[in-house]
Amino acid sequence: MTSQKLAHQETMSLPLSDDKAQWLKDIIRDVPDFPKAGIIFKDLTTLLRDPEAFSFVIDCLTAKCAEYKPTMIVGIEARGFILAPVIAHKLGVGFVPVRKPGKLPWQTEKVSYALEYGEDTIEVHKDAVGSADRVVVIDDLLATGGTALAAKQLMQKLGAEVAACGFMVELDFLNGAPKVIGGDKMEIFSVLHF
Amino acid sequence: MTSQKLAHQETMSLPLSDDKAQWLKDIIRDVPDFPKAGIIFKDLTTLLRDPEAFSFVIDCLTAKCAEYKPTMIVGIEARGFILAPVIAHKLGVGFVPVRKPGKLPWQTEKVSYALEYGEDTIEVHKDAVGSADRVVVIDDLLATGGTALAAKQLMQKLGAEVAACGFMVELDFLNGAPKVIGGDKMEIFSVLHF
Repeated sequence: MTSQKLAHQETMSLPLSDDKAQWLKDIIRDVPDFPKAGIIFKDLTTLLRDPEAFSFVIDCLTAKCAEYKPTMIVGIEARGFILAPVIAHKLGVGFVPVRKPGKLPWQTEKVSYALEYGEDTIEVHKDAVGSADRVVVIDDLLATGGTALAAKQLMQKLGAEVAACGFMVELDFLNGAPKVIGGDKMEIFSVLHF
Repeated sequence: MTSQKLAHQETMSLPLSDDKAQWLKDIIRDVPDFPKAGIIFKDLTTLLRDPEAFSFVIDCLTAKCAEYKPTMIVGIEARGFILAPVIAHKLGVGFVPVRKPGKLPWQTEKVSYALEYGEDTIEVHKDAVGSADRVVVIDDLLATGGTALAAKQLMQKLGAEVAACGFMVELDFLNGAPKVIGGDKMEIFSVLHF
């Protein structure tokens, strides 16, 4: 157990070794036909309930976030809330929630973005970050990148610098990373790639 | 700074001293008339973005949770996700999300509960916990207790022992604690009381 944990510490810098990535991938559950037929959903709850795997993922994300010297860690509702506050706490910086419409009680800034059908909106409190802040935006999974791009734009609207967006899992074949980056000087990082 | 932090460590056991409670209460923002006229909403985002206050609250909750020697920490969507995984990570145990209907991809167990108008349902994966588990359920705020009671019942349906439910804030005048406890041998704890 101890030697295994030490081995983890040595290899928690991204990108992971194939062995470490496979160890984590084997813990994630594939759920076919969710949320609709033909899609294989990556169920991360099986990893979250595994203390060693969850700690390892958190340590990877925290080490990577630390490189950007952020003043705040931003989490996207709801599954980004599972990761971002742990990283914020470990780095000793604040946590900022980006939420679905109507959830935040005070004055908000909003960004809307297109979905396959229709559109969605995310919000943040207007005083959550400002021009003195450099943030990292965290979510559990990067797919087509619509939500992460909107979260980046939301932070920029408030004057903050977005140094990076980080994810537990990235679905490379959906090509979300370049969409999120656009023309900005920023980085995308993910613990696992499918 | 150092002496203040040391002072925090000495006083993070619950219940808090009046001084410590007032320090945190002053950071929480009151938002009048949200979500409807006549209600004063306790906006906890101002505390979450304050690293020292957030760390202190997490340390209080973690120390209290540790007393129950839990095997899992359960968080209720969405604001319980902000606290429960940090506690789970610090204690070296797993995190289990309790979610709104339709969000969890695999087989779920459900509990429905009455709202002021209509009803709501929460779900958890059927294999998330079992009879070998002793859990603490975490949410940000205890009001009338409907959601926390449902989360307790959900854990019990899967055979787990619910040792306690913990909150950042408890609205004592709504009398949620006895409703959540019912006839069970369990405890309710909260960092702050209004």
